[in-house]
Amino acid sequence: MKYYDVSMLISKEMQVYKNKEDKKPIFSIASDFNTGSSHETKVEINLHTGTHMDFPLHMIKDGQTSNTLNLDRLIRSVKVFDMTHIKDGIDEKDLNSLDIKENDFILFKTINSFEDTFNYKFIYLKESAARLLAHKGIAGVGIDALGIERDQKGHPTHHILFEHDIYIIEGLRLKEVPEDTYFMYALPIKMPDSDALLLSVILVA
Amino acid sequence: MKYYDVSMLISKEMQVYKNKEDKKPIFSIASDFNTGSSHETKVEINLHTGTHMDFPLHMIKDGQTSNTLNLDRLIRSVKVFDMTHIKDGIDEKDLNSLDIKENDFILFKTINSFEDTFNYKFIYLKESAARLLAHKGIAGVGIDALGIERDQKGHPTHHILFEHDIYIIEGLRLKEVPEDTYFMYALPIKMPDSDALLLSVILVA
Repeated sequence: MKYYDVSMLISKEMQVYKNKEDKKPIFSIASDFNTGSSHETKVEINLHTGTHMDFPLHMIKDGQTSNTLNLDRLIRSVKVFDMTHIKDGIDEKDLNSLDIKENDFILFKTINSFEDTFNYKFIYLKESAARLLAHKGIAGVGIDALGIERDQKGHPTHHILFEHDIYIIEGLRLKEVPEDTYFMYALPIKMPDSDALLLSVILVA
Repeated sequence: MKYYDVSMLISKEMQVYKNKEDKKPIFSIASDFNTGSSHETKVEINLHTGTHMDFPLHMIKDGQTSNTLNLDRLIRSVKVFDMTHIKDGIDEKDLNSLDIKENDFILFKTINSFEDTFNYKFIYLKESAARLLAHKGIAGVGIDALGIERDQKGHPTHHILFEHDIYIIEGLRLKEVPEDTYFMYALPIKMPDSDALLLSVILVA
């Protein structure tokens, strides 16, 4: 079985959104062989770190949380589209030639996947593209940026996707993945009441 | 596709080893709509919480860490054995009737899976059973307790398994899973240099 591991490594040197210090995971030693009979590591981590999925509460006051998670929607076929030609953001017109149908889960591979440091001008999904995807009735969308949008006042891309019950995965690493259809296993570390969940994701060829 | 989600929910009310306060995950709000334009949750978590895998550093000074992780060893067929008749620990003799072969990955379903609070007398893998499994040359073993052993001075079960390069998964939830062979996707949140990694695990029937 051939599969691609498309999750990010969580480390203290990893890229975090806007390079903010308080978004970096903090590792500490909970016990070691000086203080006990075992070695245990702790991490303090924002749930929007690395590869993760967003829930509506992330952008909508009193919005839905991880309590609404339906794992069936993360274990399914997905279409990876190569968008490495895009220089700024993915616009409505960039989607015209793509085979996107109702209930598809689509992943956008962009030049973000080739960068390991945070780029303030990362490729994102523009409002017009989100509207088109919502109109088509897709089930989910993933991108290889830490955010699915940037520099859009009011976060319309998130809002449009959430309002149409479209799952959002951020922080994928798709460098090695050719454009194709795969079977995705996007498994979350389940936590209640949350605006995001950490994911570990593989794509089976 | 029928699958079983066999991972534990990570919450502030969840069971933790020996009910220790400092083993409980701590959730906090990194930002909300009073302080910013998005809602973000943080968690501080010991990596031996819930469903996770251990690395040798957990019990062996300067032992191997998560840097040695081979994901292929966590995506593979597994055998679930129903051990719900066991009252204390799994002993060598309890394994005699089981079909365990070289390179198997085996998961023990015990009465632990039916308890949501920490039981100081949880069912564990006794040293003699670990020796037999090491002798058989298995590739991995999982259990539905937060520890694979208890009350054994020097942690011999961990040591024997680590010395034989046997992967250890702890904190599974197997209540709904009948004894059978499954295909396991045990996907970790990858972190470097660690004595453990959080896992999200499904078993495909």
